[in-house]
Amino acid sequence: MHTVSRPLRWGMVGGGEGAFIGEVHRWAACLDGHYQLVAAALSSDPERNRRSGMQLNIDRLYDDYHHMAQQESEREDGIQVVSIVTPNHLHADIAITFLRQGIHVICDKPMTATMEQALELKQVAESSPAAFLLTHNYSAYPLVREARHLIAQGRLGKIRSVQVNYVQDWLTADLERQGNKQAGWRTDKSQAGAGGCLGDIGTHAYQLACFMINAQADTVLADLSCWGEGRILDDEANVLIRFNNGAKGHLWATQVAPGNENNLSIEIYGDQGGLRWQQENPNELELSLFGEPTQRLTRGAGYLSDSAKSVTRTPGGHPEGYLEAFANLYREFSDCLNQQQSDSLLPDIYDGLQGVAFVYAAVNSASRGNVWTSLNEFMQTANT
Amino acid sequence: MHTVSRPLRWGMVGGGEGAFIGEVHRWAACLDGHYQLVAAALSSDPERNRRSGMQLNIDRLYDDYHHMAQQESEREDGIQVVSIVTPNHLHADIAITFLRQGIHVICDKPMTATMEQALELKQVAESSPAAFLLTHNYSAYPLVREARHLIAQGRLGKIRSVQVNYVQDWLTADLERQGNKQAGWRTDKSQAGAGGCLGDIGTHAYQLACFMINAQADTVLADLSCWGEGRILDDEANVLIRFNNGAKGHLWATQVAPGNENNLSIEIYGDQGGLRWQQENPNELELSLFGEPTQRLTRGAGYLSDSAKSVTRTPGGHPEGYLEAFANLYREFSDCLNQQQSDSLLPDIYDGLQGVAFVYAAVNSASRGNVWTSLNEFMQTANT
Amino acid sequence: MHTVSRPLRWGMVGGGEGAFIGEVHRWAACLDGHYQLVAAALSSDPERNRRSGMQLNIDRLYDDYHHMAQQESEREDGIQVVSIVTPNHLHADIAITFLRQGIHVICDKPMTATMEQALELKQVAESSPAAFLLTHNYSAYPLVREARHLIAQGRLGKIRSVQVNYVQDWLTADLERQGNKQAGWRTDKSQAGAGGCLGDIGTHAYQLACFMINAQADTVLADLSCWGEGRILDDEANVLIRFNNGAKGHLWATQVAPGNENNLSIEIYGDQGGLRWQQENPNELELSLFGEPTQRLTRGAGYLSDSAKSVTRTPGGHPEGYLEAFANLYREFSDCLNQQQSDSLLPDIYDGLQGVAFVYAAVNSASRGNVWTSLNEFMQTANT
Amino acid sequence: MHTVSRPLRWGMVGGGEGAFIGEVHRWAACLDGHYQLVAAALSSDPERNRRSGMQLNIDRLYDDYHHMAQQESEREDGIQVVSIVTPNHLHADIAITFLRQGIHVICDKPMTATMEQALELKQVAESSPAAFLLTHNYSAYPLVREARHLIAQGRLGKIRSVQVNYVQDWLTADLERQGNKQAGWRTDKSQAGAGGCLGDIGTHAYQLACFMINAQADTVLADLSCWGEGRILDDEANVLIRFNNGAKGHLWATQVAPGNENNLSIEIYGDQGGLRWQQENPNELELSLFGEPTQRLTRGAGYLSDSAKSVTRTPGGHPEGYLEAFANLYREFSDCLNQQQSDSLLPDIYDGLQGVAFVYAAVNSASRGNVWTSLNEFMQTANT
Repeated sequence: MHTVSRPLRWGMVGGGEGAFIGEVHRWAACLDGHYQLVAAALSSDPERNRRSGMQLNIDRLYDDYHHMAQQESEREDGIQVVSIVTPNHLHADIAITFLRQGIHVICDKPMTATMEQALELKQVAESSPAAFLLTHNYSAYPLVREARHLIAQGRLGKIRSVQVNYVQDWLTADLERQGNKQAGWRTDKSQAGAGGCLGDIGTHAYQLACFMINAQADTVLADLSCWGEGRILDDEANVLIRFNNGAKGHLWATQVAPGNENNLSIEIYGDQGGLRWQQENPNELELSLFGEPTQRLTRGAGYLSDSAKSVTRTPGGHPEGYLEAFANLYREFSDCLNQQQSDSLLPDIYDGLQGVAFVYAAVNSASRGNVWTSLNEFMQTANT
Repeated sequence: MHTVSRPLRWGMVGGGEGAFIGEVHRWAACLDGHYQLVAAALSSDPERNRRSGMQLNIDRLYDDYHHMAQQESEREDGIQVVSIVTPNHLHADIAITFLRQGIHVICDKPMTATMEQALELKQVAESSPAAFLLTHNYSAYPLVREARHLIAQGRLGKIRSVQVNYVQDWLTADLERQGNKQAGWRTDKSQAGAGGCLGDIGTHAYQLACFMINAQADTVLADLSCWGEGRILDDEANVLIRFNNGAKGHLWATQVAPGNENNLSIEIYGDQGGLRWQQENPNELELSLFGEPTQRLTRGAGYLSDSAKSVTRTPGGHPEGYLEAFANLYREFSDCLNQQQSDSLLPDIYDGLQGVAFVYAAVNSASRGNVWTSLNEFMQTANT
Repeated sequence: MHTVSRPLRWGMVGGGEGAFIGEVHRWAACLDGHYQLVAAALSSDPERNRRSGMQLNIDRLYDDYHHMAQQESEREDGIQVVSIVTPNHLHADIAITFLRQGIHVICDKPMTATMEQALELKQVAESSPAAFLLTHNYSAYPLVREARHLIAQGRLGKIRSVQVNYVQDWLTADLERQGNKQAGWRTDKSQAGAGGCLGDIGTHAYQLACFMINAQADTVLADLSCWGEGRILDDEANVLIRFNNGAKGHLWATQVAPGNENNLSIEIYGDQGGLRWQQENPNELELSLFGEPTQRLTRGAGYLSDSAKSVTRTPGGHPEGYLEAFANLYREFSDCLNQQQSDSLLPDIYDGLQGVAFVYAAVNSASRGNVWTSLNEFMQTANT
Repeated sequence: MHTVSRPLRWGMVGGGEGAFIGEVHRWAACLDGHYQLVAAALSSDPERNRRSGMQLNIDRLYDDYHHMAQQESEREDGIQVVSIVTPNHLHADIAITFLRQGIHVICDKPMTATMEQALELKQVAESSPAAFLLTHNYSAYPLVREARHLIAQGRLGKIRSVQVNYVQDWLTADLERQGNKQAGWRTDKSQAGAGGCLGDIGTHAYQLACFMINAQADTVLADLSCWGEGRILDDEANVLIRFNNGAKGHLWATQVAPGNENNLSIEIYGDQGGLRWQQENPNELELSLFGEPTQRLTRGAGYLSDSAKSVTRTPGGHPEGYLEAFANLYREFSDCLNQQQSDSLLPDIYDGLQGVAFVYAAVNSASRGNVWTSLNEFMQTANT
């Protein structure tokens, strides 16, 4: 049985009416009872903020996040942690504001809209006593943890090849021209940042690959497309990757592939074996040792590692899904904050930096005619 | 956005350390924030009760559920609803105790261990102002709701044939002889009731079939097996069914089929079409209209009915699982209690009665040499 | 490389224009080049026979199979083997006619329309020097052979439970009333025999189960349905089975389940493991040893038994299908006739007898109110 | 019923003992009875040739293909068509030799080892009365034909994106160092040509994509790997493609991905819909029209196009496989030669040229640092 402490006092910025990811964060935080939502600035539109606050029974509602950070830090019962679920361009300033008040930050991805913001945020985070969690939720599925464990143990041998695909279809239609708010900001460079599909889902796919093989990209070569009429940000990307452990890879991200909802999948091959995992059927992991029958590992099974078991709630065959994985991040972060756990697999500021550098390198590769481009080039800029 | 009311004051009987289903109920109740656990009698073993209560931060811990029902009903801030997650033989007395105090009851299945208990509970429930929910959680998956909707709309034509299977493997080994508590009470007639596998999972499968086609069994013919050494309760059952809408069916339930975790699946065929659904991959529903390509309906899609959409949290491709479905029952029950919802699909006392009668009829059929046996025979006993 | 002998001189009775199974037999015989079609009586309708004979370039075309058997047996270059692909009621007389001339017989299933015919044919076959092959083609898939091998080796432990389903949809519509010849004779008791769906596909399913576990039914209890308007033969059957090795089973056969084409599948469970196989995806076999990850065995893999390898043509991943499996029977039969092979797994006259007895027992069980019925009862009749 | 003509007199070069593809060609040719193997030069090793010839009952066995072409062309009953199933570097000279004698040629892929050979062969073929078939067998699966038909009809809208993968694992181990003949010549540049994995399977994948969308690559950008120790030819390739219809694509071919046997798969997306097909499960085609449930089209169904039906042998649910698809090429080619068919989808000399140019462009792209490289550059060389 999971030991229950007093819940953390928790705040939220963004996530008002009609937002998708804000509600996901609330479910994820709620599932284990480790967080209690007591303060929020749910929308920059005062009327929408007010309406959303009433629906959610928020005790302390703020129109402005600066104000919120200030006041909460002064209260004895002020929030201990805040979640940021706004469009990308606001992440950096909000995170910096709360970190400077010593309030822990849970931030949606991509970490920031620009590399400059990412580097500034990194500096602030490094000098703050408060902790930072980036919600790359897919890395918290039990069988994703198992995959990382199997690879770390050398079960696949030396890793040679990675294929990771993140395939959606919702932007096949030009929703941003039909008033869809979710599509609107994601296709708007001033809010989304340099990458469209790259930032929105490509960063997830990239993080998933890096997480599983415990490596990062040295260089990428990207071919980007803007299929939707009038779009200036990519809605499809094919990215060749060279990892710093010698592996090569290909990442395909698209939001215009009819028949795909949230089809994130990955295949990894080494000189001894391979594995395959699909987010839409997350309770199975295929493991192939060369020359042997492929095995179907299932979440909840006794033969899995502690790494998988520690993020497993229900027995095998009782499917866990997206919210449970998301909730794992919340639970592990609260455990960290309560110092019950030290050696964490949680995505942090450096994963965020990687993600933004990945977007930058891919966009630059494409604009320069699809040439190999180093991620370091972008991450070191601010150090000069 | 889901409107959030003040959470219901909630209690639990059973569900201490090591219990599986008690923890499931807590997650399910927690997910939407509609319930706050404030009182409990977690175990009949005082020390285990105390330890469990501390871990769960229970405000008011009781050693005895009679005491709990009495005291809570007298408090102004007493619990409004209680969940019963004990072995089967205790369900009836606990439920009756709380219903008589006007406290709403959420009860795990099978409703009772004996038909006599079921009929007594029915009478108490009918005369109580308090409501009763039986947690046949599988009927709350969005695509199970869609299946019922499609059939009700006549999309399959006249229903001819149902095949429902609930296949597990955990009792392949004689766990009850190795001190496994879960296996222990489920294979003990005095705690589980007349049915082993039949009661534990057969009742779920039967309810799922009835729910989808909106009909009930007139008669059943059952072949039961006790494969595990020394077992006196069935661990496998093949049951032929004749439904009161003219359909015929077969139900296969087993807990000794290696390679199956919680593999509940159903196929339903009418003279115009058929559908197939599997609990372990619950976000898909196959629909076949005769002569046309089979369609794969997916949870979250725009083309689904309101019946499915009303129990859907996340967009398509973000898999929902067992806990979300279980939580749907909790959310809908709280909505009912708050009178926000009237026309409910929630399993109630009559579904519970059906389930126990199903077990009785199957056991009697088997003991009399596999002959057709009416369910009514058992349900009417107490009326005389 | 497969050694090629001079092809056998081969004849066919039935299988003219519009016939399905006749053409299948020709492909199957042709694939390995072991048979050369030189004589035939393709239809009892002289004009159709003539037309079909021309299209197939048949050297010696007969209007009458008695005539054909007589003449061919007198020629020095007469046929060595004949295939019977007529409606069921003719199988017995044709087979007897050719066997009496010493010509080997390949006969489609069910072996005969009546038990009387089956028993007479058995006596003739036992006293004839000619060989008899019954084309239960599904038993010749490589992974079906592997399944039998694994079970014989005890990999599943003691067999407890069998579920075998053969599910089609083509008779959902009343095709026999629309002039469909295939549907016409299969729903006509005078041509099909006592069983409808039972004889047409139920016998395949029953043979597959018996083949895999190397056992036979002692008794069956059957529930039959005639859903199609005006049908007098079953178009759906649920049959409970008790095998002579102590296992229990359930067989579901239907031809009115929309969305299923030729969906034959089987699951077998023992006290150590289980396996699952589907005819529509025949190049995979799932093997589950209790407590271990399920393994996906694939046709062509190096780890398979010689039993599977001996009927494998192409490497793994180059899918083999229905015709290849059917052709395996033809090739093995020619090898037997050429005495290259002795210990054969080929279905013979006794499998045929079993199949007809299965149909009879099931039909009798149903007509007597769904009671357990012995197969022996029918097989022994003629011995008296 | 398929009309059967007198079989074509048929010869074979290559395909002796231990060869895989030679035996496939013999099965494919044999299945429909349109070809009769009467002459062959099965191996350049006289003893192996003799032994193989005896096993196959070859009437006229030659040690030398020049001799064979000469003699057969002079006989009245000489072969009408020859199949070439040698290592790649011999294809061109053999094909030219027979074409010059007016004998039709069926040639395995890739068409030639070098671009020079391809261009010379093209010139000879264009001036010969004899016909040329390149056995890109995957384009002859019924549902591949259906996919091409659906796209041609505009069901997917304007094609945007293609992902085609051909994934094997057999070269994970260094088989060429262990005396494996198949691995030996395929990893030997002097026999295989410029491409390793690219030539062996990449050309199939490229042709499949081109066939389905009825377009060709303008340019490619390739990243090649040689993972196996000591290999100088690629055993894995990631190739970005820009098609001449405006679509973009990615092709992944590898022979070192454990757990994959012959896993060729393709996904194609347009602005109205998408489709997905897998060679290892070839009897299904997924079709997704944006906003509607994905449909599973199945081989043999009544709703398919004539294009699919014309290469379909058995009803739905009776799986057809690799040999049947391969045989479709043979049957259609014989129909062409018998002038029963004019508007053919058969792969010809120009497809062969495309394939070799694809390999050349990819190899050049990789060697020049992964830059976009035009296929035309190579196809036009010889015209100067």
